[in-house]
Amino acid sequence: MSGVKARSWIKVKEFVGLPKRDDFEIVEKELPALKDGEFLVEALWNTVDPYMRTNELSNKVGSPMVGGQVAKVTQSKNKDFAVGDVVVGQFGWTSHSISDGAGSIMSAVKLDPTIPLPQSTALGILGMPGATSYFGLLDICKPIKEGETLLVNAAAGAVGSAVGQIGKIKGMRVVGFAGSDEKVAYLKSLGFDAAYNYKTVPSLEAAIKESCPNGVDVFFDNVGGDFFDTVLRQMNTFGRVSVCGAISQYNALEPRKGIDVSSITLIVKQLKIEGFIVTRWLDQWQGAFKEMAQWIQEGKLKYRETVFEGFDSMYDAFVSLFKGDNIGKVVVKI
Amino acid sequence: MSGVKARSWIKVKEFVGLPKRDDFEIVEKELPALKDGEFLVEALWNTVDPYMRTNELSNKVGSPMVGGQVAKVTQSKNKDFAVGDVVVGQFGWTSHSISDGAGSIMSAVKLDPTIPLPQSTALGILGMPGATSYFGLLDICKPIKEGETLLVNAAAGAVGSAVGQIGKIKGMRVVGFAGSDEKVAYLKSLGFDAAYNYKTVPSLEAAIKESCPNGVDVFFDNVGGDFFDTVLRQMNTFGRVSVCGAISQYNALEPRKGIDVSSITLIVKQLKIEGFIVTRWLDQWQGAFKEMAQWIQEGKLKYRETVFEGFDSMYDAFVSLFKGDNIGKVVVKI
Repeated sequence: MSGVKARSWIKVKEFVGLPKRDDFEIVEKELPALKDGEFLVEALWNTVDPYMRTNELSNKVGSPMVGGQVAKVTQSKNKDFAVGDVVVGQFGWTSHSISDGAGSIMSAVKLDPTIPLPQSTALGILGMPGATSYFGLLDICKPIKEGETLLVNAAAGAVGSAVGQIGKIKGMRVVGFAGSDEKVAYLKSLGFDAAYNYKTVPSLEAAIKESCPNGVDVFFDNVGGDFFDTVLRQMNTFGRVSVCGAISQYNALEPRKGIDVSSITLIVKQLKIEGFIVTRWLDQWQGAFKEMAQWIQEGKLKYRETVFEGFDSMYDAFVSLFKGDNIGKVVVKI
Repeated sequence: MSGVKARSWIKVKEFVGLPKRDDFEIVEKELPALKDGEFLVEALWNTVDPYMRTNELSNKVGSPMVGGQVAKVTQSKNKDFAVGDVVVGQFGWTSHSISDGAGSIMSAVKLDPTIPLPQSTALGILGMPGATSYFGLLDICKPIKEGETLLVNAAAGAVGSAVGQIGKIKGMRVVGFAGSDEKVAYLKSLGFDAAYNYKTVPSLEAAIKESCPNGVDVFFDNVGGDFFDTVLRQMNTFGRVSVCGAISQYNALEPRKGIDVSSITLIVKQLKIEGFIVTRWLDQWQGAFKEMAQWIQEGKLKYRETVFEGFDSMYDAFVSLFKGDNIGKVVVKI
């Protein structure tokens, strides 16, 4: 068995600024024969996510790029995974992989057959980004109260669009910022109370004051940088900040200085700022997905995907994240 | 009744840098007659605390300086407060005050007669600073685990010295930074695992690496500024930062820029940073004081006071906080 050639995207240089095509090489290698307990999967859908830009989250030079994947089992010596099963796993930017199905983030989980949604959603609204939205809002910013004001940026993205809608489901006033008029229209169609194109708004500060007349109670930050600083100044007492991403900074060449949080403002306003990685709640993901699938079926939670075609388009899909061209989740159909 | 003249320290100018003597005037005015339900108190002990430097915490130009006080009742038309009772209240920098005893931070609370400690402790270890230490560590940084490393700065002060000792009571490794060799010796006498004079240590970063070989799990920050940034870089995953004070910044003329917390470091390390004001837990203070009084009687929690003599010494006592001359709580014996 096996004898299959796997193609993988290898990171061959440290990224400097926006990743370049020649920071990667596609290499092909033959996979070994399956051992007992192992199975072979073939990629159906790959994902690209902003965290892959960072050096801290394990994309080492010389290794295949990490990342989630929906794949089908094509050979198996594992009694729990049969040929034809469709699984989601952290197999990376690769065409074929061998898994042992063991219980970790790197393992394979069969898609829940009771959820009648496309397979690709296991990389998006019912995958890592969906869990990020759910726990990053509801757990990091708890207690969430009806009538509170939630501000989210990169709001038309996979995470931001779900965060805003979950906020609406919980009775919050939701204000979103995104990078095009088309995205703003999308946010309004999702029920956001206010939405702005941050690229054309004359003053971010004025837009926040206008749309959040009672201040900001909860700030879900995907962007970081100056955006973070501007919102932080308009937080209410007992405000909570969920630091999910910093896409404005991933390609920065130098670390920036920012608002001084070791300051009287943080103290007087009793603000809480917390960073997180969503695998913290891995044992609770499936429960969240069941609830979110229910919301999707009830029409309360909508999602969009931007699809790139083919394994060779991984790079284009990846850098599109930093150009702000897309609405919703970016996936690659293999 | 009444007919008493009260002397008060009035803030007459906005502070610029270190407060100056002529930012204040002492004024005398006659208090009105007591109404039903009111009582008159005469100051026994006044407190000075770093927060009084800030504009945000209600020291307005033209008003008396705010602050806690231990006082005795000298006239009363309130059935719950008899002449001779000793109370603690937020009466400010004043010699005589009228209170109605109503339930708020501005009200009077009788000292607990079952606690056999000096009256002045109601402004220190069993007062606002003690509660700050207790809740700022145990609540903001929860869950506190045995064996974790706690770093505290301004560690010989009223708050820091209690924070470190409570950390030891909870089984933590405790590292303190203070501003003189005498203070360092004091911290070692309190059982701190390591203590440094931050003014003479060649490198703060190196001192932290040396004393916290497993990194910092909990950082109780009284100082802010560059100190905050340096520690934040050495926090462990799931580290918690209690932002209690920023004494390095209160006299600063310009807001500084600091470490960018909207960054990948905060996210990857999943850090939590929270500011607080201790009145948040006002309804739980008495329970904390009972526990702390027990620790004091068992010899597990020690405290020191630096006493200034006389109402006219309030200014000298106050600015001494920013010169770093004192060990423990600074109080003024009226």
